[in-house]
Amino acid sequence: MIKTAVLGATGYAGIELVRILSGHPDAELKILGSQSFDGQPISEVYGNFGHVLDLNCEKLDLERVSECDVAFTALPHGASKDVIPLLIERGLKVIDLSGDFRYDDVRVYEEWYKQEHSAPELLKESVYGLPELHREEIKKARLIGNPGCYTTCSILGAYPLLKSGIGKPDNIIVDAKSGVTGAGRGLGLPYHFCECTENTKAYKVAAHRHTSEIEQELSKAAGEEVIISFTPHLIPQKRGILSTIYVNLNKKCTTEELTALYKDFYKNEYFVRVKDAGILPETKHVAGSNFVDIGIVVDERVNRAVIVSALDNIFKGAAGQAVQNMNLIFGLDEKTGISNAGFYL
Amino acid sequence: MIKTAVLGATGYAGIELVRILSGHPDAELKILGSQSFDGQPISEVYGNFGHVLDLNCEKLDLERVSECDVAFTALPHGASKDVIPLLIERGLKVIDLSGDFRYDDVRVYEEWYKQEHSAPELLKESVYGLPELHREEIKKARLIGNPGCYTTCSILGAYPLLKSGIGKPDNIIVDAKSGVTGAGRGLGLPYHFCECTENTKAYKVAAHRHTSEIEQELSKAAGEEVIISFTPHLIPQKRGILSTIYVNLNKKCTTEELTALYKDFYKNEYFVRVKDAGILPETKHVAGSNFVDIGIVVDERVNRAVIVSALDNIFKGAAGQAVQNMNLIFGLDEKTGISNAGFYL
Amino acid sequence: MIKTAVLGATGYAGIELVRILSGHPDAELKILGSQSFDGQPISEVYGNFGHVLDLNCEKLDLERVSECDVAFTALPHGASKDVIPLLIERGLKVIDLSGDFRYDDVRVYEEWYKQEHSAPELLKESVYGLPELHREEIKKARLIGNPGCYTTCSILGAYPLLKSGIGKPDNIIVDAKSGVTGAGRGLGLPYHFCECTENTKAYKVAAHRHTSEIEQELSKAAGEEVIISFTPHLIPQKRGILSTIYVNLNKKCTTEELTALYKDFYKNEYFVRVKDAGILPETKHVAGSNFVDIGIVVDERVNRAVIVSALDNIFKGAAGQAVQNMNLIFGLDEKTGISNAGFYL
Amino acid sequence: MIKTAVLGATGYAGIELVRILSGHPDAELKILGSQSFDGQPISEVYGNFGHVLDLNCEKLDLERVSECDVAFTALPHGASKDVIPLLIERGLKVIDLSGDFRYDDVRVYEEWYKQEHSAPELLKESVYGLPELHREEIKKARLIGNPGCYTTCSILGAYPLLKSGIGKPDNIIVDAKSGVTGAGRGLGLPYHFCECTENTKAYKVAAHRHTSEIEQELSKAAGEEVIISFTPHLIPQKRGILSTIYVNLNKKCTTEELTALYKDFYKNEYFVRVKDAGILPETKHVAGSNFVDIGIVVDERVNRAVIVSALDNIFKGAAGQAVQNMNLIFGLDEKTGISNAGFYL
Repeated sequence: MIKTAVLGATGYAGIELVRILSGHPDAELKILGSQSFDGQPISEVYGNFGHVLDLNCEKLDLERVSECDVAFTALPHGASKDVIPLLIERGLKVIDLSGDFRYDDVRVYEEWYKQEHSAPELLKESVYGLPELHREEIKKARLIGNPGCYTTCSILGAYPLLKSGIGKPDNIIVDAKSGVTGAGRGLGLPYHFCECTENTKAYKVAAHRHTSEIEQELSKAAGEEVIISFTPHLIPQKRGILSTIYVNLNKKCTTEELTALYKDFYKNEYFVRVKDAGILPETKHVAGSNFVDIGIVVDERVNRAVIVSALDNIFKGAAGQAVQNMNLIFGLDEKTGISNAGFYL
Repeated sequence: MIKTAVLGATGYAGIELVRILSGHPDAELKILGSQSFDGQPISEVYGNFGHVLDLNCEKLDLERVSECDVAFTALPHGASKDVIPLLIERGLKVIDLSGDFRYDDVRVYEEWYKQEHSAPELLKESVYGLPELHREEIKKARLIGNPGCYTTCSILGAYPLLKSGIGKPDNIIVDAKSGVTGAGRGLGLPYHFCECTENTKAYKVAAHRHTSEIEQELSKAAGEEVIISFTPHLIPQKRGILSTIYVNLNKKCTTEELTALYKDFYKNEYFVRVKDAGILPETKHVAGSNFVDIGIVVDERVNRAVIVSALDNIFKGAAGQAVQNMNLIFGLDEKTGISNAGFYL
Repeated sequence: MIKTAVLGATGYAGIELVRILSGHPDAELKILGSQSFDGQPISEVYGNFGHVLDLNCEKLDLERVSECDVAFTALPHGASKDVIPLLIERGLKVIDLSGDFRYDDVRVYEEWYKQEHSAPELLKESVYGLPELHREEIKKARLIGNPGCYTTCSILGAYPLLKSGIGKPDNIIVDAKSGVTGAGRGLGLPYHFCECTENTKAYKVAAHRHTSEIEQELSKAAGEEVIISFTPHLIPQKRGILSTIYVNLNKKCTTEELTALYKDFYKNEYFVRVKDAGILPETKHVAGSNFVDIGIVVDERVNRAVIVSALDNIFKGAAGQAVQNMNLIFGLDEKTGISNAGFYL
Repeated sequence: MIKTAVLGATGYAGIELVRILSGHPDAELKILGSQSFDGQPISEVYGNFGHVLDLNCEKLDLERVSECDVAFTALPHGASKDVIPLLIERGLKVIDLSGDFRYDDVRVYEEWYKQEHSAPELLKESVYGLPELHREEIKKARLIGNPGCYTTCSILGAYPLLKSGIGKPDNIIVDAKSGVTGAGRGLGLPYHFCECTENTKAYKVAAHRHTSEIEQELSKAAGEEVIISFTPHLIPQKRGILSTIYVNLNKKCTTEELTALYKDFYKNEYFVRVKDAGILPETKHVAGSNFVDIGIVVDERVNRAVIVSALDNIFKGAAGQAVQNMNLIFGLDEKTGISNAGFYL
């Protein structure tokens, strides 16, 4: 059994990790780190865990965490960077859900996060935890920068088209819609039920940090620098991201041809489901699962591909992907504990 | 592996069964019965099953079903009664999710369902599939009448109080609130999104069939005939039932005393979680799980207990309980495949 | 034109008042009192008022408020009691939306609100602002205690039955379900979108302050002391309260007879709509309007009436009723500015 | 008083018209046309109209309709085209909410609607009812093609930028999100509550009919043919459309400059609210009102404008705009009966 610690266990990404790990056949939850709920049974903080998980929250105690094999860090920014080097030092594998270890180039991080990086050496070592693109490096990694939710959805949606050279790298637009769990459990007027329900809005237009992650990976696909327009939206649902991605094409293609291209590209990926031509993803099909669904339509009048990709922002976009990374690092079947179908209802 | 058939697999109770069984370690899905989607892959009907379950829907073929060990029948009324005798004849265990086999007394069925029962002999043999009350009979049963959703929630909420003799059997009121999955996938104006959302209403006041099931079981608890007022409500959410149950008391009691009574009564039940005094259930804590949460408050000014019980109507109120019954019949640990925490998010 | 001030204009009840008054033909909004948004245009705080209302929020300035004819006080408890005497002194009519001036007996207030009342003389003078029951006193009042949302819904639902002597005053149960606007705009984890949506729960069972208001008015109807069990619930919608009220009957009655009784009782009330026998209220029918819808069913097996009443908690349950009271005080047609149909959509 | 008929009164656009007209000071509702509910009081079909509107639905009777001054036709396609010529013949003004009379060029209609137009002469005469662009022609029109919901939102969002010559006419992308009322009251599995809630999806990608309307008007703005990519999405709310529009720029501009351009362009328009730089529209701010809110951000890294526009699809996107057109035709202040703030809650 892999001994696991979840630091920041009572946020939404953290608690989804706890939920997934509580049913994982090869992992054991040892530590539920939480400053705010130190000493409280997790089943009091989240009533759904009654009779399922008999563990108390505790504040960070490095000695106790050191007995684990892996730590998932779902901490606020800053906290993450301070704690992780100490964990690595003690021999743990670390899968970090913050933005701190997702970058190839420290300057990109510092530009978008408006702060100096406190562990640039570790950043260099860290691996971007998107298994569909970096599986082999993940297997050997000590430190994973687990990708953001918008990011995973958008990168996997656009990658094959850019990699193939059929998609043009300029004029790429990613219009993404996210459920409210993406904002976390912290209080804020925009997340009050009466403000959220029956409401849709765009936010941080042309300014969201995930832009830089998407560009980093799509630039690799295209073999040249890709700059995109990325627009996040908040929609009145808990789980789910839908990215609608617009890419101009270098040559005439049909919906069927691009669908075939995508099916081929992802043919060995359990967690990517390319829809048949004419069928499009819905967030309901992925909610509660680690799947990314992708559908492609060619807008033939303008020779532009419209790619729609969907995932569950706290599952494949956070906790599920973190477990997928853990599985790879520890030599398990990548699907272990996360192969389930989504809830649908 | 237990070979299973789900007849009526594409309704909401059916598909939740399919979802649960697709992750059950000791059961194998062999047949997905569906008249409407005969020949279609289940993953086309419910997109969440892509890459998870590679089975086609098929219309009823008794020979094929006969190869299974157990059939779950989630069929419309009538259909159920015609098919089940044939399945029993062929040696299958049958767990029926309709109302047809839930009654001790055929006259009660006929009064509330306004039709003659076509298999009264089987009705006599059938066992009411509420494991917390009828576990031993279930283990030996060939045919289970799987309880209704309102019913399970309300019976388990009121039972200990009546059984103890502390609750008075008259003046019992059950005010229940249900999510919309309870109405099934069939189309109807009341279930149109724009009619349901931002709407709460009562329906079938003093006339809902589940009344009779609740009365049947509570009468056993009380040792005398119990007649209740039962009011179902439709609330704008998918999953979840909350029953608020009012029972006058034969003697002065405190919230703490009744809470202790309930904790003791259910002390060996994994799937019943009695909340500490002062804490009340929420549907969010049970959604996606087989748990029933119960909280008790004594309204001391009138010496009346207010019991609040919550469950997920399509899980513990339908599909999950059906699997719990299957586990018992086949000698498995009752929790197998359904021990998970609820979704919360 | 009646010159109006809304103190506490940026809470939910306050802003609904502002919305209604901004369309009222005989009232003029002069003062939008708000501590938190002092100096800000209301259209920045609530974007829906752009181009409609060109007023800034301001903190309390008694001199400025004194130029108004009427003040609506939608202030937190305590604040209300301190400010109101000063307003009355300056000759304003005051319609108070807090609980401070709703009681006939100061001891009841002090028992349920756990504090001494600072203006018992004014409390004595104040009129309970439920026009359907106290219209004539309201017309002459200087100070109105505007009823609570649960209260209005429940009192109007049960009143005729108790007044007629047909309903028994003991064993009355009020099971009420409220939308989230009832909790106001303040932040709190239970009102976070992801905690509220897909969730229903009971709260403050046998302990909610509105109990005492309901009892006060129903005791008048019954001519003897009435003690009820009142259970509030939170349901995942913005607007709307549905009260399901259980009253045992002194004699055999049919649904049709009681419906006729109610229709007669409310025959001159524009804002009360008694549904035909067999039809039940839905919150969607009253949302956005000043109507209370009432339906009655007799549960003949137990000779108990089940009365379902519905209203919009921030309209008839707060702001709309306050305007109805203003209309009465200033000699206008009671319906002025609030006669509209609900939104439905 | 203008005598009005609403044909197709019981669909969602129709009933919103009825709601608005029931509060319009200069209009009188005479006819509520409905095939399905012929003879039924409207307050039985829509419970929110009890005590407000005492009219029965009736099936089409041309003689009776002829007594009106104006007919709003909210009929299914086809029905519309057959009835309208007869109404025009009888001297009524007609405001048609279908797509039949929105086109300058009959060929565009026939291409996108896949059918021959049965009244091409009337089509030629009809005026596109977007008052912000065609006010003067509307005032003199007999027949209005009332614009679609996506259309109004998207055209008003992009128009100033194209008109100014700053926006490039190629590479325009309109990514639009719509509430479910846009799909009407007809039954269909995608509109079942349990299928809609917690779900977001794109549909009719590169194939939605409103594309052609948007292109028609934007081509006029640009002075050359504009071909766009238009992607509609269904989001889990009742009311509201948010269009996110991407337009490349011919020259470097700042957010502030383009905001100033928009403010100037719409400076005389009550119903268009251009947000200050840095503020973005939300559907909640326009729901229940005739406003269109527009915000602009320049994505400076790629010199592209991202314009976000929001409206209420059944108000400004259908019924409210129809009333605005009626007001213009009959010489009233354009705002009469529709100047109200949105609901917010």
